Amino acid sequence: MSTQLKQATNGVPTPQMKQVSRDERMPENALMDAVAAGRVVIPLNSNRRGTCDPTGIGAGLRTKVNANIGTSPRRNDIGEELLKLEAALGAGADTIMDLSIGPGIDRTRKRIIESCRRPVGTVPLYQAVMEAGGAEGMGIVGFLDVLRRHGEDGVDFVTIHAGITLRALPLLERRLMGVVSRGGALLIQWMRRHGEENFLYRHFGEILSIAAEYDMTLSLGDGLRPGCIDDATDEAQLHELRVLGRLAARARAHGVQVMIEGPGHVPMGQIVENVRLQKEYCDQAPFYVLGPLPTDIAAGYDHFAGAVGGAIAAGAGADFLCYLTPREHIGLPDAGDVREGVMLSRIAAHIGDLEKNVPGAADKDRTMSEARAALDWDAMGRCAIDPVRYRQLRETEERSGNCSMCGELCAVKVYREDIGR
Amino acid sequence: MSTQLKQATNGVPTPQMKQVSRDERMPENALMDAVAAGRVVIPLNSNRRGTCDPTGIGAGLRTKVNANIGTSPRRNDIGEELLKLEAALGAGADTIMDLSIGPGIDRTRKRIIESCRRPVGTVPLYQAVMEAGGAEGMGIVGFLDVLRRHGEDGVDFVTIHAGITLRALPLLERRLMGVVSRGGALLIQWMRRHGEENFLYRHFGEILSIAAEYDMTLSLGDGLRPGCIDDATDEAQLHELRVLGRLAARARAHGVQVMIEGPGHVPMGQIVENVRLQKEYCDQAPFYVLGPLPTDIAAGYDHFAGAVGGAIAAGAGADFLCYLTPREHIGLPDAGDVREGVMLSRIAAHIGDLEKNVPGAADKDRTMSEARAALDWDAMGRCAIDPVRYRQLRETEERSGNCSMCGELCAVKVYREDIGR
Repeated sequence: MSTQLKQATNGVPTPQMKQVSRDERMPENALMDAVAAGRVVIPLNSNRRGTCDPTGIGAGLRTKVNANIGTSPRRNDIGEELLKLEAALGAGADTIMDLSIGPGIDRTRKRIIESCRRPVGTVPLYQAVMEAGGAEGMGIVGFLDVLRRHGEDGVDFVTIHAGITLRALPLLERRLMGVVSRGGALLIQWMRRHGEENFLYRHFGEILSIAAEYDMTLSLGDGLRPGCIDDATDEAQLHELRVLGRLAARARAHGVQVMIEGPGHVPMGQIVENVRLQKEYCDQAPFYVLGPLPTDIAAGYDHFAGAVGGAIAAGAGADFLCYLTPREHIGLPDAGDVREGVMLSRIAAHIGDLEKNVPGAADKDRTMSEARAALDWDAMGRCAIDPVRYRQLRETEERSGNCSMCGELCAVKVYREDIGR
Repeated sequence: MSTQLKQATNGVPTPQMKQVSRDERMPENALMDAVAAGRVVIPLNSNRRGTCDPTGIGAGLRTKVNANIGTSPRRNDIGEELLKLEAALGAGADTIMDLSIGPGIDRTRKRIIESCRRPVGTVPLYQAVMEAGGAEGMGIVGFLDVLRRHGEDGVDFVTIHAGITLRALPLLERRLMGVVSRGGALLIQWMRRHGEENFLYRHFGEILSIAAEYDMTLSLGDGLRPGCIDDATDEAQLHELRVLGRLAARARAHGVQVMIEGPGHVPMGQIVENVRLQKEYCDQAPFYVLGPLPTDIAAGYDHFAGAVGGAIAAGAGADFLCYLTPREHIGLPDAGDVREGVMLSRIAAHIGDLEKNVPGAADKDRTMSEARAALDWDAMGRCAIDPVRYRQLRETEERSGNCSMCGELCAVKVYREDIGR
């Protein structure tokens, strides 16, 4: 089966490209060129054509938001995961990642995929380590077997931590937090115990073959992402990013769509530079950031701190924001946490879109402001990014007229009267 | 009674300067110079010495957070306001503004001041308009009478919208949202009805005399602040900012401490420039920003959107963040909204402080990261900016060991085992 990238390279606009072109107000040829150049990806498993909405991620497009869900060994309730899925989709998440590690991973994944018309991503390494009974028992054979199952089931994009190499390990010694990526830590344990190079790196070609077969988009994971602002933009992180850039080039040469995952914890003043470096090292591949968190002390509010970094990153060119929830660094989120996390990330993405001049983004703010100037509370509700929350908060207010904040001293009302509107 | 500014100019370090110098790890002489130059203010009514904690606001100091509380005609319950005050102080607000417009303003203000050891600010114009029965009936005599009462009662800083002048009014015609400042709209109504110059501008000298008498810090209000991102950084806003710069110079010459209020709604990419212009036009006076909000569509989450802008502004040199609550643009907040608003603003301020290299700021993040690297959950709670929220979220987790997110696959745990820590 041909991939979106191969077809774009051949100058064949697919129905998915046409759809994305319409949704994003980008001319079809420009969109196809962007896919061909690898600046835009359309993560869509070839088994999911027709059952998943085509979604473009990359330069010139609306910044997308991903919500992570998934079981853990201690909380392995598929019903709860489907509630989280519903919360994420209801809040407007563009994609879902199933990070399940609780028993029954195959079943959980299938249920999530069949319940989700948005692109679904996974981290096959998590299942590989569970099936291998621990990091040491992992290997490329088991991994490829898992990867193929994910492909068969319709997974649209997969995180692959192929960028961690033996050469990077000494660079970690200077770090305060070491390694905070689940995939990164597991692979390093495997590499140290076996004294061998990362099997995902060594067998990257085989991974590409399976990815191409199902047109699974690779999301090259940053296993060495900094886990605190002190460790940000260090040589370990940049070394891995350069490796990811080379792997991205190999993926494209193989017709496989690819994006790059990024930090993590980054001081505010380094965020723009992080985006610039990613675009430079990875030849403009879409950048998928986790946060970034510009402070380490916001536990309980990391969805907010991450969205601050996400807004700045998106404005600087990041294409895809992975949400955080209020439970980040604390525990597994519930459906309420998921909703809150998606909403803040969507606001961050929109702030970034205004900065990037994404077509249509500024119209939303203008329509809202017109509604405000007219004191039209219902119209404001329709413009609000979360009309449900808006209605909840308005419930205690009077139906029309001024709000309880200012009453008759409402500046908008006073000014309108004054200019005779 | 001499003001902090006069004493600094005379080279006399006051007990308040000494306290701020210790709290902020700024050498006493440097702090005194900053007060003398007007880069730092210590809002503290001379009647409140001993009953209010000295708080410095300005360059080189920790970014401060203000919480607005106050009654409205429809919600005029002093008990509720005292709950909001408690919520704000409990969440770590540095200052409180009482914006009451419900009947019994004098009594409400007195109760708030006597219950608050942090600096208290007001907008005397609100009381002046209520006592005058509307904007048209206002005048300088009534205003000065109110201002003096606020001074007697111990108000530490007052917003004065003296920068709106007749010359600015034609500049508003191009705006989408017009005027969104309560004080601004009322004064413009007064100016238009009377065909006269803003009485706060014309009688600024008399305002200065009363402010000096009680050492009330002036917070020069931006009555023309943009109410939507479309109106940001326009000529109306900049015209007023230049007027505020001249008024600030007059205030300092009179020995009156002064800071400048700023927008409002500002696209992300214009925030840094807004801070730069304020510092330039107002000779480095402390900058007190409301938000800024980099999008107009986040109703229900404007405390978050405002904190995104606040973090960027603080990092660029803004000194003082006015919080927003989830009810901004919708209604009067309750105590829960107040708590949430203060917390997000505090995180934004801290992100800014890391960027500004405020002494001690980075230590907090480092200590948290050390606790994380050691998987010491109790220590993490002590480092968290909101230990109460942290404990609530941890309640469903096991007392020690890994969290429910990753269980045995905890990256930190795996990595620690691996390097034999």
